[in-house]
Amino acid sequence: MKAFSPAIAALIESLRILPGVGQKTAQRMAFQLLERHRDGAGKLASALNHALEVVGRCQRCRTLTEGDTCSICDNQARAAEGTVCIVESPADVLAVEQTSQYKGQYFVLMGRLSPLDGIGPADIGLDLLEKRFQDGGINEVILATNPTMEGDTTAHFIADLAARYNINATRIAHGVPVGGELEYVDHTTLGHAFSGRKSL
Amino acid sequence: MKAFSPAIAALIESLRILPGVGQKTAQRMAFQLLERHRDGAGKLASALNHALEVVGRCQRCRTLTEGDTCSICDNQARAAEGTVCIVESPADVLAVEQTSQYKGQYFVLMGRLSPLDGIGPADIGLDLLEKRFQDGGINEVILATNPTMEGDTTAHFIADLAARYNINATRIAHGVPVGGELEYVDHTTLGHAFSGRKSL
Ligand SMILES: [Zn+2]
Ligand SMILES: [Zn+2]
Repeated sequence: MKAFSPAIAALIESLRILPGVGQKTAQRMAFQLLERHRDGAGKLASALNHALEVVGRCQRCRTLTEGDTCSICDNQARAAEGTVCIVESPADVLAVEQTSQYKGQYFVLMGRLSPLDGIGPADIGLDLLEKRFQDGGINEVILATNPTMEGDTTAHFIADLAARYNINATRIAHGVPVGGELEYVDHTTLGHAFSGRKSL
Repeated sequence: MKAFSPAIAALIESLRILPGVGQKTAQRMAFQLLERHRDGAGKLASALNHALEVVGRCQRCRTLTEGDTCSICDNQARAAEGTVCIVESPADVLAVEQTSQYKGQYFVLMGRLSPLDGIGPADIGLDLLEKRFQDGGINEVILATNPTMEGDTTAHFIADLAARYNINATRIAHGVPVGGELEYVDHTTLGHAFSGRKSL
């Protein structure tokens, strides 16, 4: 006996694309959307389609944004700081912004070096980053990749790249729990990690 | 500093309609959809729109379905059983179906009696249910509402209704879950288990 009609089964299946959502949760979500939150479900569909249509990557820092460049890259006061904070994902930009301690710019790798998975320097935009090093105006690169083996390797690789342009590279302090992911760290800890950063 | 572009902020806000999804989870979902799962995100939007368009309520049992009546109501063999299982939601239909023990039909209240919230008999479709009692062919009503105060009240109300049509009403047993350990079962459940004890 099929317990769901095809449209409901398809919705449940589609909801499972969401991170952390298994079969049971997807069922609960589908029923709740169709029983009680039809307006919200319609808005969610529209928001998804609109975001898919307009959101791309910032041409300067690679974060997710609409338009050619993001609001942080467009901010001249932040550019004048002469610092670039290197993070793995757009969620990490948000996490750092929430500390209110950092006033410079970002570069979002959208990943990390991972030779075993075939992810090399070009895949995480390091050609674009090197171009920014060449263009000048940067006096410090703050390496805020995750404190994992791959994140550390990536940080060292970028520190070496920066050294070739006489740019100082610092690594955020390990107040961040080793093996943890940046986006889940509380603001205070992440703020400490920033103020405790050291030269590599 | 706004950390998100408007389309991303709108998507995050929309995702929060999902049950159990707070701000942090919604952010993580939005980034993952836009960074890595664009195909899946597009399919989710389509599945939502399609389900909203075609899914309504079964005219016979009130569960969510496309078309006038659901596949369980359309099944003549199940109708011939002469039993109607009363549940609070479509998710409960699924739960009962997964036991593979029940072969009859359902009636889905889409809620429960709750005078304080202004939810009376008509709001949970009891007029439609009484019509089915009148039409005949039912020899047992199985009350599978949740073992809460409101669920119990609703079960008793429906049992009284069934009595007027000389239909036998039964309540599913509540007790210690099979495989569960006594010390971890909550007091209320254990109380039910004691008062519902049977001779061996
Ligand atoms: Zn940017
Ligand atoms: Zn039905």
